[in-house]
Amino acid sequence: MATIVVPENFSYQEDAEGLRKAFEGWGTNEKAIVRILAHRNAAQRKQIRQAYHGLYQEDLIKRLESELSGDFEKAVYRWILDPEDREAVMANVALKKSGDFHVIIEIACVHSSEELLAVRRAYQARYKHSLEEDVAAHTSGDIRKLLLGLVTAYRYEGSEINAKLADTEADKLHGAFKDKEFSHEEVIRILTTRSKTQLMAIFNRYRDDHGTSITKALQSEPADGLIKLLRVAIRCLDNHVKYYEKVLRNAIKRVGTDEDALTRVIVTRAEKDLRDIKELYYKRNSVTLDHAVKKETRGDYEDFLLALLGNGN
Amino acid sequence: MATIVVPENFSYQEDAEGLRKAFEGWGTNEKAIVRILAHRNAAQRKQIRQAYHGLYQEDLIKRLESELSGDFEKAVYRWILDPEDREAVMANVALKKSGDFHVIIEIACVHSSEELLAVRRAYQARYKHSLEEDVAAHTSGDIRKLLLGLVTAYRYEGSEINAKLADTEADKLHGAFKDKEFSHEEVIRILTTRSKTQLMAIFNRYRDDHGTSITKALQSEPADGLIKLLRVAIRCLDNHVKYYEKVLRNAIKRVGTDEDALTRVIVTRAEKDLRDIKELYYKRNSVTLDHAVKKETRGDYEDFLLALLGNGN
Repeated sequence: MATIVVPENFSYQEDAEGLRKAFEGWGTNEKAIVRILAHRNAAQRKQIRQAYHGLYQEDLIKRLESELSGDFEKAVYRWILDPEDREAVMANVALKKSGDFHVIIEIACVHSSEELLAVRRAYQARYKHSLEEDVAAHTSGDIRKLLLGLVTAYRYEGSEINAKLADTEADKLHGAFKDKEFSHEEVIRILTTRSKTQLMAIFNRYRDDHGTSITKALQSEPADGLIKLLRVAIRCLDNHVKYYEKVLRNAIKRVGTDEDALTRVIVTRAEKDLRDIKELYYKRNSVTLDHAVKKETRGDYEDFLLALLGNGN
Repeated sequence: MATIVVPENFSYQEDAEGLRKAFEGWGTNEKAIVRILAHRNAAQRKQIRQAYHGLYQEDLIKRLESELSGDFEKAVYRWILDPEDREAVMANVALKKSGDFHVIIEIACVHSSEELLAVRRAYQARYKHSLEEDVAAHTSGDIRKLLLGLVTAYRYEGSEINAKLADTEADKLHGAFKDKEFSHEEVIRILTTRSKTQLMAIFNRYRDDHGTSITKALQSEPADGLIKLLRVAIRCLDNHVKYYEKVLRNAIKRVGTDEDALTRVIVTRAEKDLRDIKELYYKRNSVTLDHAVKKETRGDYEDFLLALLGNGN
């Protein structure tokens, strides 16, 4: 479930006017920006952008970029974009900073088939070539194979499972991992083409037959590039709520919080399942995510994240 | 341009009644079936199926299968399906008869990004798993890499070209082919991710710089599985009208016509660009395609193909 709180009554026109007012005069009124934008869903934010453009012949996104700065600016910029466009931007940024391939994997593995496709369309509209072209151009070898397979997937989402096949393919994965053949073409094939439901059956079978989960099996290996990414893929495909809880935990635990990760998870999940991630976070850490965020962040950035986490209106 | 001729006035109800009448009594009236179905486009055929079902609580497709036989049945069955559903069926049949991978490549490379996606959706609806799952399950090694990359592509379709990149990548292809590295990951990457416009620029560059077309370069190689499929992919991506003309030429030239190929090209292109294919066929063979088809086929099958080729009403 989502965390953001949207008021019952508001008008796009007034929102646009409120934002304009926040930009004017001495210094920007960041509190007003949070009060409005953090409490509107994606469709509503789009309407506000349109209303703002209609009233002032100015691009709201560009104006926000010029008014804000630092982590707050980055978070608001991610938030104000249409979700598929935001993911396209995140993918592009991740490709440029090579090493951030886990962001590409999240986009490819957490989304539904249609959502991933929407990101691929948005990517083309913005960058004038395909996501897979850029993924291929920034990678090589086994990592390219894995990433290309994941971003081009359009997985079956029906409920049908083939139990016998799950059995065979759990064995195939186990055999490949035992022989340290992590880039075996069958490993890539299974992870990039099977439906999520089928993969869950495969992962369950793996645990039942071999006494350890597939992610644990990979964890005991030296964390080279490919193995790390295989783990991210498997965890995102298997249970992304659990995966994101850990991303947040690591981001917060780190000396000098990882604001990029914090922003990424909160902004991308606030309208989807951030409530579930919060619950798991509390169970796992015995402290609420809100509390942890309060401790690790400050200023407008803190206010914004807390609002997305469902605080106040 | 399309070849089929659709009359100005007709009613779905009357069409459905006409078909029902054709099924009744002693023997089937195949001429009536051709007269109706060969002169309706995909959307109209769908309406007829619905009208037929509404009137007789019977599935028109199943009834046609039970009434017809041989090449005629096969052609009508292909034709009566929605285009994306037909391609899904054709892909599935091709996978089962391994060796027919050129059909998969045609589907992946001739269609637009959205059309290919529609086929992938139709495939899932019909077979309860994804096209790429089945492609992967029926192939291995280099052929798998090529086919998977092609069927999962969602290529950029804008007009932007990067001329410098076309230059570099034409050289990459040339280098790989010179070293007989036909399955080089860069070859697969370029063919499976670049936009068709960009690929055309690459192929032109290849010809300009190396004095021979890329397909000619591959033609001089021993036609093993992969090389053959690479050629099909390049020809479908580069100029599918030319490609289909040759498929028809080979189908007709063969001792004992290749009806499968004949049906496939005529049925799948009749509503799209069969007129262009016909023109090219005439230029290349100095005999009209209609004439050649007349010579090589007979009976209801002949009537049906000729009607799709734009003859009579």
